[in-house]
Amino acid sequence: MRIYDIIERKTQHGELTREELAFFVKELCEGRLPDYQASALIMAIFLNGMTERETADLTAVMADSGDQIDLSGIQGIKVDKHSTGGIGDKTTLVIGPIIVACGGRMAKMSGRGLGYAGGTIDKLESIPGFRVALSQEEFIRNVNTVGMAITGQTANVAPADKKIYALRDVTATVASIPLIASSVMSKKLASGADKLVLDVKMGSGAFIKDLDSARQLAEAMVSICRRNGRETVAVITNMDRPLGRNVGNLLEVQEAAATLRGQGPEDLTEVCLCLAAQMLSLAGKGSYQDCLERARASLRDGSAFRAFRSFLAAQGGEYDVVEHPEKYYPVPREQVILADRDGYLTVRSAEDIGKASMMLGAGRETKDSRLDYTAGIIFAKGAGDAVAKGEEICRLIAQDAGRFAQAEAAMRQALAITAERPAEEPLIFAKVGAGA
Amino acid sequence: MRIYDIIERKTQHGELTREELAFFVKELCEGRLPDYQASALIMAIFLNGMTERETADLTAVMADSGDQIDLSGIQGIKVDKHSTGGIGDKTTLVIGPIIVACGGRMAKMSGRGLGYAGGTIDKLESIPGFRVALSQEEFIRNVNTVGMAITGQTANVAPADKKIYALRDVTATVASIPLIASSVMSKKLASGADKLVLDVKMGSGAFIKDLDSARQLAEAMVSICRRNGRETVAVITNMDRPLGRNVGNLLEVQEAAATLRGQGPEDLTEVCLCLAAQMLSLAGKGSYQDCLERARASLRDGSAFRAFRSFLAAQGGEYDVVEHPEKYYPVPREQVILADRDGYLTVRSAEDIGKASMMLGAGRETKDSRLDYTAGIIFAKGAGDAVAKGEEICRLIAQDAGRFAQAEAAMRQALAITAERPAEEPLIFAKVGAGA
Repeated sequence: MRIYDIIERKTQHGELTREELAFFVKELCEGRLPDYQASALIMAIFLNGMTERETADLTAVMADSGDQIDLSGIQGIKVDKHSTGGIGDKTTLVIGPIIVACGGRMAKMSGRGLGYAGGTIDKLESIPGFRVALSQEEFIRNVNTVGMAITGQTANVAPADKKIYALRDVTATVASIPLIASSVMSKKLASGADKLVLDVKMGSGAFIKDLDSARQLAEAMVSICRRNGRETVAVITNMDRPLGRNVGNLLEVQEAAATLRGQGPEDLTEVCLCLAAQMLSLAGKGSYQDCLERARASLRDGSAFRAFRSFLAAQGGEYDVVEHPEKYYPVPREQVILADRDGYLTVRSAEDIGKASMMLGAGRETKDSRLDYTAGIIFAKGAGDAVAKGEEICRLIAQDAGRFAQAEAAMRQALAITAERPAEEPLIFAKVGAGA
Repeated sequence: MRIYDIIERKTQHGELTREELAFFVKELCEGRLPDYQASALIMAIFLNGMTERETADLTAVMADSGDQIDLSGIQGIKVDKHSTGGIGDKTTLVIGPIIVACGGRMAKMSGRGLGYAGGTIDKLESIPGFRVALSQEEFIRNVNTVGMAITGQTANVAPADKKIYALRDVTATVASIPLIASSVMSKKLASGADKLVLDVKMGSGAFIKDLDSARQLAEAMVSICRRNGRETVAVITNMDRPLGRNVGNLLEVQEAAATLRGQGPEDLTEVCLCLAAQMLSLAGKGSYQDCLERARASLRDGSAFRAFRSFLAAQGGEYDVVEHPEKYYPVPREQVILADRDGYLTVRSAEDIGKASMMLGAGRETKDSRLDYTAGIIFAKGAGDAVAKGEEICRLIAQDAGRFAQAEAAMRQALAITAERPAEEPLIFAKVGAGA
């Protein structure tokens, strides 16, 4: 088998076999494939596309390129959840405890944030004592005892994806649905779950901006999973505005806790209930409607909140920081942004809100940036709410007051006060997949 | 300027500016451009194409990347000629002296052969004493005194082309009309001629197999030249069969000499007259028809043959080898191939004839192969001739008789004796360009 022939076939719109894709990935990972041939093949795939079969096979061989997590020590059907990333997305912290309260289990590997999107591991690390690096044994033991565990990704999950992504990043070949889908799903296939629920974020705060692209990505990811024997449902959710009212690490943990006590903002609550019910239903816990009812009940009766506290305790986290952050962190500075006219709050760019949060210290501009776990933004008003001149719209929070000026400028870009109330947007645009 | 943005624009079917193409070539030549970005851009160009303007600009900046030959020391209009390569193609050796006999001048840089196609420099090196490496001064002096000179390419003509071609060769991106045209023409633009005649070979012995592709390539090359201020005519000629009856280095020199004495095969004679007349006409020596008549006369009246001898003498070559090769080389071995039935000679693959010639020692399988200048093939019959069982079709010639078996097998692939006479084919399919 020669890489030249594989590149040539792809330039001629041919379909590559699983063996050819496996050869490409193996040669790449073992350092035998020159970068110029790898990038030529990636460009040919970028421009000429891949069939669903090719995409599924490429994903599988990428997943095979590194460690595969063995979850067979966990009883029952393991359902994982993945979000394509957005602003204020603390759904994992809410959904896990709901699943546990409803008799399910969640064994989840999560990542850190980079740029304007946050990462679940960073949020959990804002909780003093919380351990994000569990051994495989402890990970499985915690799932079996408290019902859920969240751990950071091991270094060697889908190394082929890291190599391919690094090349795509410098050759203008990132924006390809089959390549994005295979990149995301290679890590998920390696993470050992039986079934998956995908939260495909769409809007100004997500990398997918329109419903057509969101649908294509959702269908590509569901197809990859189906062809690899993992039943999957993708839910396309709104990311034209931040999810919930808090953006930041500890701020989002606090909002997740409030939501688990039944006191969360409606948008966050509804999206979490939908995703949790989808996961419970895939896990065989009943119809989607039944699961939705039970999930909602778990927020009312305190069972989800108790599951959250057990989960934190099992991984060494001090829940107390949620109620008394001042005992663990210096009290941060605040800067309030007021409405400069009467009207309605409109979010022009959720991404700019993410950038403002990053500027405050809640996100990483580079891999080496140090986070301010207390930093972020709290909205007093939601998108579409009426505001009067002089009323508080939101407040910026950071240990370092020197960061407010730049962040406030970004927020002024991100928000507007309009004379007309902005059109209401659905929280959930569509579902894709067999059990949807 | 960032190469990333240039790659991205090409993936989006955008048109690159001359400045962007120059930046790409400069970064590549100066070693600052990583191979993976170069090959990604080349693949994007390969798949998404280039406009005529882009192709002309890329060619010009490639020509600018190395030495530019200064022919201003030669009086009059300098017309160069370039062939895309074929089997038995000794036209340069015939055309040059015709041009000189008709009052024109030819200052030509030529290359060596690789694989099944021959190279003019190899043919000239079969002449004892002939010097193929002239200084720029001697090159120009010879053109001014004897009317023509042929020299090998300097090492530093269009180095960008060498780098780009090396990447194309390993990334399955050779077969692109704009990239082929820019590669060929970058060397021609650097070689300093005012005008050009291109011999685009088409058929089983050329890399272009069909008229559509030949026309596209011819038009691309003519457009590059026109946009760079060099008037150019491309002639698409037949390469479904070898040109003339001799294939090999010294054998082709001998056939060229015979043709210059008016005793050459008709196909070779007619193609050479056509190309020479085209060049003379571009050089302002009269209408194409007038030039054709004068070129024909030069073969009859001995003036072209005399110009050939002066040319050889000026570069140190012993013309005597043409008449008495046994004085300079050991007498080679021969193996005759006979017709095994009555019928008509049909050439199934001129490329296979070229391969047989290479196997006999007349061509290089690798860059380091040593040539047998006496080796090759002499045809007793031409394509379409009637042959009787037992008659000689051709003879294989080589110093090493051990090479005959493999070469004969290739010739049996290349030739057939058919009951029907093969359809007559035109020698010249089309002309492309302003003066055509």
